Amino acid sequence: MSDNDSILTFPIGKEITLTQKVSESDVINFADITGDKDPIHLDQEYAKSTLYGERIAHGALIIGYMSKASTLIHEGFGRPLVSLGYDRIRLIEPVFIDDIITIKYKVIDKDIDKSRTIANITVTNQRGNTVLVANHIQKII
Amino acid sequence: MSDNDSILTFPIGKEITLTQKVSESDVINFADITGDKDPIHLDQEYAKSTLYGERIAHGALIIGYMSKASTLIHEGFGRPLVSLGYDRIRLIEPVFIDDIITIKYKVIDKDIDKSRTIANITVTNQRGNTVLVANHIQKII
Repeated sequence: MSDNDSILTFPIGKEITLTQKVSESDVINFADITGDKDPIHLDQEYAKSTLYGERIAHGALIIGYMSKASTLIHEGFGRPLVSLGYDRIRLIEPVFIDDIITIKYKVIDKDIDKSRTIANITVTNQRGNTVLVANHIQKII
Repeated sequence: MSDNDSILTFPIGKEITLTQKVSESDVINFADITGDKDPIHLDQEYAKSTLYGERIAHGALIIGYMSKASTLIHEGFGRPLVSLGYDRIRLIEPVFIDDIITIKYKVIDKDIDKSRTIANITVTNQRGNTVLVANHIQKII
């Protein structure tokens, strides 16, 4: 291994911040790919009748945007990292169509023996409210 | 509330099983929506050089397919349920392009006071291997 492909060299504290508009087309295309056509995501009239009063993005779409951050965090590292999963994800507030969210992905720990990085993810909206928190684990393969 | 819109009536043990082909176009479209263009998902030559030897689907895409199951489980229920998050997700084995996965979503418990359902999700591939396990929480809004 070179200096650039050992878990030992992956810096704890490294972070990435992304800003992402949650567009209507993203929600519609995501529904088409996954088959999740819950009217709360797609039907404005229906959504008006719910507690939220408007359409919300799929939680899994927000997790998809987080996936981009988890890839950018290891750009330039000598070996591939893949997602091993999450210890906890909480969708704290709904994300509405046209919201602009900010995803902060920060490596907070490593498991040297298992070649894993552990990260905190925090997603906020344009009103400064936290809409999602998660702990993510990646492993070097 | 009618008999059909109280958490009291949501049946513990209810389950949904979905089969889903993980197509190349789903992976490409998912990368376009989310911006996660890690070459391990998109670049066959690069993927050949990794431990897995071929392109793998984004873990977040599998979570997207799971979202369909979490919507189907509450079809016909009198009030909307939305995802509150996951207590644990583990991507146990890689999912390759053209794999056919089976998602089993089973409600295993309820939190009556908080109007929540708690479910186990198990995803297996066409070889019978478990590729993902998760615990999912939904809440009535």
